[in-house]
Amino acid sequence: MQTLIKGGWVLTLDDAYREWPAGYVAINGDRITAVGPLKDCSPELEAAADIVLDTRGQAVLPGLVNAHSHLFQTFMRGLADAKPLWNWLKEEIWPFSLAMTEEDFYLAALVGCLENLKNGATSVIDMHYIHTSKANDDLVFEAMQASGIRGTFCRASADQNYQPELMEDRLTILAEMERLARQWHGAAGGRLTLAFGALNPWGCSPELIRAGAKQAREMGLKLQVHVAETQAVARTTIDTYGQRNVEWLADLGFLGPDTQLVHCVWLDEGEMDLAAQAGATLVHCPVANMYLASGAAPVRRWLDRGLNVALATDGPGSNNSQDMLEVLKFTACLQKVTTLNAMVLYPRDVLTMAVRGGARALGREDLGVLAPGMKADIVTVALQRPHVGPVHRAESALVYNANGNDVVNVLVDGRLVVRDHRATLVDEEEIMARAQARVNTLRQKLGKQGGGNDWI
Amino acid sequence: MQTLIKGGWVLTLDDAYREWPAGYVAINGDRITAVGPLKDCSPELEAAADIVLDTRGQAVLPGLVNAHSHLFQTFMRGLADAKPLWNWLKEEIWPFSLAMTEEDFYLAALVGCLENLKNGATSVIDMHYIHTSKANDDLVFEAMQASGIRGTFCRASADQNYQPELMEDRLTILAEMERLARQWHGAAGGRLTLAFGALNPWGCSPELIRAGAKQAREMGLKLQVHVAETQAVARTTIDTYGQRNVEWLADLGFLGPDTQLVHCVWLDEGEMDLAAQAGATLVHCPVANMYLASGAAPVRRWLDRGLNVALATDGPGSNNSQDMLEVLKFTACLQKVTTLNAMVLYPRDVLTMAVRGGARALGREDLGVLAPGMKADIVTVALQRPHVGPVHRAESALVYNANGNDVVNVLVDGRLVVRDHRATLVDEEEIMARAQARVNTLRQKLGKQGGGNDWI
Repeated sequence: MQTLIKGGWVLTLDDAYREWPAGYVAINGDRITAVGPLKDCSPELEAAADIVLDTRGQAVLPGLVNAHSHLFQTFMRGLADAKPLWNWLKEEIWPFSLAMTEEDFYLAALVGCLENLKNGATSVIDMHYIHTSKANDDLVFEAMQASGIRGTFCRASADQNYQPELMEDRLTILAEMERLARQWHGAAGGRLTLAFGALNPWGCSPELIRAGAKQAREMGLKLQVHVAETQAVARTTIDTYGQRNVEWLADLGFLGPDTQLVHCVWLDEGEMDLAAQAGATLVHCPVANMYLASGAAPVRRWLDRGLNVALATDGPGSNNSQDMLEVLKFTACLQKVTTLNAMVLYPRDVLTMAVRGGARALGREDLGVLAPGMKADIVTVALQRPHVGPVHRAESALVYNANGNDVVNVLVDGRLVVRDHRATLVDEEEIMARAQARVNTLRQKLGKQGGGNDWI
Repeated sequence: MQTLIKGGWVLTLDDAYREWPAGYVAINGDRITAVGPLKDCSPELEAAADIVLDTRGQAVLPGLVNAHSHLFQTFMRGLADAKPLWNWLKEEIWPFSLAMTEEDFYLAALVGCLENLKNGATSVIDMHYIHTSKANDDLVFEAMQASGIRGTFCRASADQNYQPELMEDRLTILAEMERLARQWHGAAGGRLTLAFGALNPWGCSPELIRAGAKQAREMGLKLQVHVAETQAVARTTIDTYGQRNVEWLADLGFLGPDTQLVHCVWLDEGEMDLAAQAGATLVHCPVANMYLASGAAPVRRWLDRGLNVALATDGPGSNNSQDMLEVLKFTACLQKVTTLNAMVLYPRDVLTMAVRGGARALGREDLGVLAPGMKADIVTVALQRPHVGPVHRAESALVYNANGNDVVNVLVDGRLVVRDHRATLVDEEEIMARAQARVNTLRQKLGKQGGGNDWI
């Protein structure tokens, strides 16, 4: 299958940041074969293409990487905005999670994958930590497969201090990781991968952190953990072990170039140094950090230190959307207002984190740049709409003007999974109607008032 | 003309915040005649309707009020993100403004009106301060008229310390206000209004502030001024007059219930008291305050003091879009992260500011609520898309999940100006193409490199 994308404003995000306001990208199978200015696009290339996408008026760029989400929370967007964190978890999120069926986890993940794709993320890392049934995990993988997204299922868990029905013992966790790795890691032509997740420093024993990291490395899997999201989380390891979050993780052998540290709002300088020395990735979730009142991470200082930074939406329970183009704007704006320096991040810095920072977090040298030989994970974004145009520079328009709804086409592995704003592999309306019906039923079962039980 | 909106999740925003997940709104001419649950919608009402909008899966709410913009800046979105404020003004914004023709001001305003409508704002206050030709002002009014928006043209100016070609003398300003009031105030059946604008405390002489306020009140016009946007602006009146911004304005007779104070990031407690005593409106522009690194206004403290608060995008030069649904999310998130209190603003508080706070700023008791007798300024928003649904509560979904692109239908004065995402009165594609062509030409004239001159 050959596809030709022609006429859009092509941003390669290569080392020279080459771009052509009128350019083209040629694709054969799952790989890019040529990129350049439109005038160099040969008639032969067009004649050979099975699909030609006319992208005049659109930006064409590598797919964004959403480096941290919790897809099951698409069923919990705005479930309750009026409760402090602990009550929110205890009275809303946990009971709702425990009421969800296997099928609900499939459906919630499918909504989440669709949302990510339609909003410009070709890759998503889903940290999933509700293992009330073994099938939940497999069904998330199946949803990723069905949607066409490049998905990393990060199987996260807690073996202490957590909601009893949501905790697991260490041996179960290790056994399930073994099973899932055999069944899913590298599936769908390499599109699906497994990662090891530690939920957070207070919910995981040192033994789990150590054993999980060791096992993950033996299987070639990435590692992800929530770190120092709030001041309270930062204190947990200090109170218990006399060490800060990242010091504790480093001593337990968790830290490496394959590690993704999510949030990191409250790291001290020593922890940043440890992360930098290890070559770890810090995953920044500005919308969720604001929504949950966690704080503002000092992203400019991370970059100045040479740390790899990826961007993410976090789960829909604390965002409440998964719109990576929205995340771009929040990232720039939050750094500006907290430093009172309008020049602290340029649009290019922000785009680079969302694309190349994410690709590096995934350890993928074949993602994040439009160049021959790279995987064809590509999004196109409408720029000639009244809230986006007229355009001076595409980089700026992508960060500040456009949002996820402006994404027109999405390719993953060269496959057109969203075309002209519509998912090609699944029926969106049917999925959304089913999801709403299930949420209404779950609300009724849990005796929730004042919501939309009679809605739709 | 009778219109029936049926089946959507109707949020009245009345004093009791009544809502019906399946409701209806009936409209006759420019007024709402009935609102309620769908089961009370009679077959006669449907039979009598010229237009029936099926809004199942959508929210139905009063139109948002964008209380502060600079529409001409649609031609300058992201013109330069990499310059500090003074260089940005001197090297980019002023030369670009001076190069714009009369027709450009029409076209830029038309893009801006379309953008506001399509993103859910049925009312906009345009603070316009480029009077290089008298016709510029009339053409902005004409653009508002053509688009169908409810527009307030706030004629702002500076008579000192500003770019020479953009300054005016006081008598010219007063004479032009007279002329514009005669010609436009109350035009289009009351849809268009004029307001008096003072650009900022350092660009306006005390004489201009005093005379402008007096004249505006005699003509029954609202007043708007940029106040304490940055720490530097807050210092200007202290350095020159020994008074803080709002103290100075109060002493000059500018402050009243008809006054809109824009930004107010750096007010002290005494200034908040003065504004509250006067019954003035504070206009909060969170995205622009972040984009320009101005700071975070303490909105929760304003509300607790009983101040009327309206929300706004600010001009596209410092945002860079005009998406009031985006502003809702930024408003909540910015308050949360700066107070480290996730409960500081509920979705209802934010919606209320954007709708009823704006209506009060405009002095309109017939806007801001869906109830019989009120003006039919109404928007409907798609909620069953993968980044919005499934929905628990419409208020939360509107503030956190949806963005301006999810706006489906827009009515102003009962007239359907956007239907199924498309403007009904003007040709969007033609306008956007013309605007882009003009921006390309202006870039070439000004010798700008590296942008999109060969784009489109």
